[in-house]
Amino acid sequence: MKLIENWFSERYSDNLQLSFRVSDQLLSIKTDYQRIDLFDTYDFGKLLAIDGTVQLTERDEFIYHELITMVPYHLTPKPPENALIIGGGDGGAAKRLLDLGLKHIVNVEIDDQVVEVSRRFFPSLSSAFSDARVKLLIQDGIKYVKNTSEKFDLIIIDSTDPEGPAEGLFSKEFYMDTRRIMNDGAVIVSQSGSPFYQPKAIKLAYSGMKGVFNDVRVYTGFIPTYPSGFWSFTVASPWPMKQRPVTTSGKYFNADVMEGSFRLPQFVKELIT
Amino acid sequence: MKLIENWFSERYSDNLQLSFRVSDQLLSIKTDYQRIDLFDTYDFGKLLAIDGTVQLTERDEFIYHELITMVPYHLTPKPPENALIIGGGDGGAAKRLLDLGLKHIVNVEIDDQVVEVSRRFFPSLSSAFSDARVKLLIQDGIKYVKNTSEKFDLIIIDSTDPEGPAEGLFSKEFYMDTRRIMNDGAVIVSQSGSPFYQPKAIKLAYSGMKGVFNDVRVYTGFIPTYPSGFWSFTVASPWPMKQRPVTTSGKYFNADVMEGSFRLPQFVKELIT
Repeated sequence: MKLIENWFSERYSDNLQLSFRVSDQLLSIKTDYQRIDLFDTYDFGKLLAIDGTVQLTERDEFIYHELITMVPYHLTPKPPENALIIGGGDGGAAKRLLDLGLKHIVNVEIDDQVVEVSRRFFPSLSSAFSDARVKLLIQDGIKYVKNTSEKFDLIIIDSTDPEGPAEGLFSKEFYMDTRRIMNDGAVIVSQSGSPFYQPKAIKLAYSGMKGVFNDVRVYTGFIPTYPSGFWSFTVASPWPMKQRPVTTSGKYFNADVMEGSFRLPQFVKELIT
Repeated sequence: MKLIENWFSERYSDNLQLSFRVSDQLLSIKTDYQRIDLFDTYDFGKLLAIDGTVQLTERDEFIYHELITMVPYHLTPKPPENALIIGGGDGGAAKRLLDLGLKHIVNVEIDDQVVEVSRRFFPSLSSAFSDARVKLLIQDGIKYVKNTSEKFDLIIIDSTDPEGPAEGLFSKEFYMDTRRIMNDGAVIVSQSGSPFYQPKAIKLAYSGMKGVFNDVRVYTGFIPTYPSGFWSFTVASPWPMKQRPVTTSGKYFNADVMEGSFRLPQFVKELIT
């Protein structure tokens, strides 16, 4: 990634970009799967970009990671004891699940270099991988789901967008395979992109899950360093989901967010009808 | 406003900016109050910037304007018949209030050049000013509120941010003056900035209104072309506000938004406690 006068820019389209002033470029590597860049930014601290798109920053990662873990956590019939994370090589999702008290987490990341970068630059997140309750596997999540004999209470798809290596994680076939490895009452969640700029991701996730699960819902949240600042997640279960009472809060998540994040603006509703 | 290689950039800080590729710069003037720029952008259509900050774009103005009108509209005891708009020289707020069936609207804008620019470039919004139900006054909203003998069911502060000409519109003194010109059950709303980048605006509006009104509430929405994509509004009344049933929807607003927009993330709650 070439920096122009110490600015890192994420192109949202040919005609729109968000730019971060950078004090240092700490890393730029091409792995077997993607390009990884690590910048030290003035406003958001360390920033991890994959193929030119912001994955996480020190300052606002809490919003994405709370939303992708704490919302589905409250939709299982009883607190989930174990979980599968596909992607999430930074460790942020595993870290939150440990904080929520889960006893066993399998985290399947395809690219070991994401894990290495996180170990160097986001130790507070990657520390999850040193916890005895977390089993980190470097392999293709699609193959893992096809072949494993383990079953889970919660499945989290913490992937990049549906172009490149993550494309198969937004397919009906993949969701059918996840169905097989669900315990009774289990819930699956996937990040599903910006409803404003990437209607494709939300449509893929929603229609794919609708073909497999009985109860499928979309929720949204505000993430300032992601395109448009507005992000969607799609959550589903073969069983009707019922919200358990919320007694914890994070820096973003709380009981109000648990309810309010499912109340969708009209244009988002229209994307999924 | 100087364009760099046909990109207009709004600086959110010294270290962060959102940039729009521009096919044409249609106007750049310095008025008695502020600098006004008008760009034709590829992704958002025509874009109006004041002092370098995006005020509205053709593509996403509906979100801001629906939120600042349709939410408070549903918080008066019966549908409001008349309203005062301070700012809003583009006509977007007046236009939505007409659509909602209001019979009499006074729109007080300090800068006639904002109105002129809107008449040229946003005719679908500024058409509101040709409607017999709308009285447009070019004067200082603070003075108007101090001196008028009219009273209103709904007061909308559709201003720029609390630096420059709009600063006085975020003060307790100003809110006290608005109290005097409220009909029974009236509601006042003000845009109050990005909770993420501009905690000052929301704190000013909230604490100023708390000093004057009994029922003060904050709601938020997603606006992709405003800093961080996440925006707040503060609404208040001397009387307890009760939500009327929502039977209409816009492109953003609907019954779910009416409820969900008041459910605040934890870090926003902490700004106003």
